Amino acid sequence: MKILEPIVINGMKVPNRVMVPAMVTRLSGEDGLVGQAILERYVRYAQGEVGLIVVEAMAIHGNKAGPLLRISDDGFIPGLAELTKRIHGASDSKVVPQLIHFLKISRSGWRQTVDMLSLQDIERVIEQFGEAAARAREAGFDGVELHNAHAYTLASFVSRVNGRTDEFGGETLEGRLRLIGRVMASVRRHVGDDFPVGIRYLAEEFVRGGYTVEDAKLIGLRMAQLGADYLSLSVGGKFEDAIHTPGQILHGYTGYSGERCMPGANYPEALHVGLGAEIKAFLVSKGHHVPVISAGKLSDPATVERILASGRIDMAGIARGLLADPDWVKKVRLGQTDRIVKCDYCNVCKQLDGAHKPVICFLWPKGSLQAPAYAETVTAPAWTDNQAGLTVARDRDAALLTWKKAGGDVAYYDIHRADDGGAVRVIDAVKVTRWKDGAILAGTKYRYYIRACDAHGHAGPPSEVVGFEPGFEEFGVEVREPARV
Amino acid sequence: MKILEPIVINGMKVPNRVMVPAMVTRLSGEDGLVGQAILERYVRYAQGEVGLIVVEAMAIHGNKAGPLLRISDDGFIPGLAELTKRIHGASDSKVVPQLIHFLKISRSGWRQTVDMLSLQDIERVIEQFGEAAARAREAGFDGVELHNAHAYTLASFVSRVNGRTDEFGGETLEGRLRLIGRVMASVRRHVGDDFPVGIRYLAEEFVRGGYTVEDAKLIGLRMAQLGADYLSLSVGGKFEDAIHTPGQILHGYTGYSGERCMPGANYPEALHVGLGAEIKAFLVSKGHHVPVISAGKLSDPATVERILASGRIDMAGIARGLLADPDWVKKVRLGQTDRIVKCDYCNVCKQLDGAHKPVICFLWPKGSLQAPAYAETVTAPAWTDNQAGLTVARDRDAALLTWKKAGGDVAYYDIHRADDGGAVRVIDAVKVTRWKDGAILAGTKYRYYIRACDAHGHAGPPSEVVGFEPGFEEFGVEVREPARV
Repeated sequence: MKILEPIVINGMKVPNRVMVPAMVTRLSGEDGLVGQAILERYVRYAQGEVGLIVVEAMAIHGNKAGPLLRISDDGFIPGLAELTKRIHGASDSKVVPQLIHFLKISRSGWRQTVDMLSLQDIERVIEQFGEAAARAREAGFDGVELHNAHAYTLASFVSRVNGRTDEFGGETLEGRLRLIGRVMASVRRHVGDDFPVGIRYLAEEFVRGGYTVEDAKLIGLRMAQLGADYLSLSVGGKFEDAIHTPGQILHGYTGYSGERCMPGANYPEALHVGLGAEIKAFLVSKGHHVPVISAGKLSDPATVERILASGRIDMAGIARGLLADPDWVKKVRLGQTDRIVKCDYCNVCKQLDGAHKPVICFLWPKGSLQAPAYAETVTAPAWTDNQAGLTVARDRDAALLTWKKAGGDVAYYDIHRADDGGAVRVIDAVKVTRWKDGAILAGTKYRYYIRACDAHGHAGPPSEVVGFEPGFEEFGVEVREPARV
Repeated sequence: MKILEPIVINGMKVPNRVMVPAMVTRLSGEDGLVGQAILERYVRYAQGEVGLIVVEAMAIHGNKAGPLLRISDDGFIPGLAELTKRIHGASDSKVVPQLIHFLKISRSGWRQTVDMLSLQDIERVIEQFGEAAARAREAGFDGVELHNAHAYTLASFVSRVNGRTDEFGGETLEGRLRLIGRVMASVRRHVGDDFPVGIRYLAEEFVRGGYTVEDAKLIGLRMAQLGADYLSLSVGGKFEDAIHTPGQILHGYTGYSGERCMPGANYPEALHVGLGAEIKAFLVSKGHHVPVISAGKLSDPATVERILASGRIDMAGIARGLLADPDWVKKVRLGQTDRIVKCDYCNVCKQLDGAHKPVICFLWPKGSLQAPAYAETVTAPAWTDNQAGLTVARDRDAALLTWKKAGGDVAYYDIHRADDGGAVRVIDAVKVTRWKDGAILAGTKYRYYIRACDAHGHAGPPSEVVGFEPGFEEFGVEVREPARV
């Protein structure tokens, strides 16, 4: 399996092709120190055999923020060293911190933009990135990742909406790329050539006036020329279209670009792989073989394997899918894909992040701050004779499903649906015993069944299958013959 | 050539695969009547042999608006009949009007939304669409197109952000589709089965909470079931993210979704064909062969031919490309692609539309309200011995090109560039004799030449070629070895 193939990134032997991209956990305090909950969160990924763990963004400077890790002072090194020691003790997973610089922002909605920075401020940013990278090396990390994505400082320079007019200015591509060039040089001065330095950046900004994949190809080329050891792609997540809630800090994931960054259930799966593939192909055409990592609704093992095997990208970034189930890689390795807790992209995690509350997965057992431990033995919940009493009935313009509680420890139920005899898909996961399908279309034949899952993702046998065939007449639809071409 | 292959749409024989989608011209008055300038604009497309001409949106009701055509009363029929007569007299082009219903909007920024409509209001909309379609047939149109796209009434019902909670409500797909179903039935009652009725709708909304191509497949299926004779796809153009200029009417093309709808020079060409292809493939899988038309930066004949020949979509919607050169199809037929006025996506046309000023193309001769007539004989502008005195030099982070005026009647200059020995592309068109390239990257080898064009798009011979090889050092870029994988 391509998923389980190792990849060496500037000497760092990553045991497989799965990365957990930086996800804010809101498990640290305002002090920025590594606490018990943070340790547990990342050790959990290591136990699950994730190839490359990117620890949530940590600030390289002292600007005020909500709960956020810090690496802005040597005083943070012991805590971080404990983190890397614990992760390395758990498995062969490799771990890098995401180094972030962000600008000032106030509850009034005001925010500092790159054009407000003096040249001295910029020199300080450059130095701070280098110093933070050195601290990361000292703390035992296997490399570092520079956060050049979303609404933050580096990405705001690379952005097409960079409003500066000087040598770091937005009018030219070289102007926009100057800061990341200087930062990379500073980081290399601090950590040397033999330490992996990855960059996360945007394959497309998805804001008005922002850049598209056309620029992203050139930006990736420059990053490769600068000696980036991997390129991890994201999209959107900008302040420019963020929605300000009065009295709250602006959150970069509240606008359309934020929706693209963490797309919900109504988006197609693997929706941004095409952008990654385009960038990868461009880099290869220029002789650069730097690994390209893509993310965005990648969590079905078969889909991930197909994409990786095609060689269109080198690694899969799986964020919400690994939050839901940190044992994703381990279960793939053991042939237990049926036991994976499948992210349903409900985005409760995203809402918690926005509210500065500890980020957990809705599918975890109630009250848990971490995913349950891997369980060797399976006693998946089930119904007697697999008869769940599943019913489906029309409820206005929707289909209403109801069923009985399954026996055993049920954490949630996966809803499976097939349309017109096509492939079965899991279309939602719920904790109650009823579910409404508002996405049905009269004239289509649906088949549903459900599976009860325990907290470890063990799915019991499927329930009986029920069919639903909403007719055109009952929905008042006047059908005509197909177009006469 | 696939481009020149006819297609029959419910008895309407469209002579080729090119459609000019509805583009507001702002050439009518507030009275909504067809005037001389409107006649000339559309006859021009017919002279240029455009397969299917969609006349700009005309209102089916009396709501106040800026300059806009109307079909809300029988009194508009004679003017429209004159328009169809003149178009049919010019060529075999077929012509349909785009029928629009829009909600109220005020300069304060307030706008009526679908949840404010009573059921009686909705019944009136349904009836008005039917009546307008009947008037269109009486006026000699070859069919009609229903405007179910962008920020307008029908699209706002189909939208995922439809805020109604009744039978026309946004909570279910069937609820969102109810109005277009009722409208189609009404239109058929008024015009019968043997009159082509197309629908324009969005392949993706590109707003927060909006729908994606996943829904668009199902929406297309329903439209096919309703008997739509063609599906013309657009994207975005919504009010939800529009930017309100105080004192101005909200314009649906000012936000990010509006940028996607009319993407500028920084977007890839043919960027939305993939969405159209996905929808087409889905419809075919369901047994529906309704023609699917896609739009979005389609204007290079080779690209259009390749896409049509692949069968991924059935027709190409070319808006800005045909505004720039209404003779696009004729020139393709005559093998004169070198004489096509190539849209450079500067979006001056879009700005004029937003300002309610007559929409013209920047590349037309200054002061012209219409594209120049097709000219049989060619005396393209040129330089003596094709030596333009072209120079290129570094100007801060850009490359500055300068050249001499060409002899003859120069309308504009096309800038051609090749990167690292790759394919030559026209990257801009200007009316002056200097141009700055802010999109260069140190370490890449560029070759430039220019061609002087007359007002008919006749491009003279290429100038001399100049090379530009910006070095890393002069741009202060510290290059490292490629990543050591």
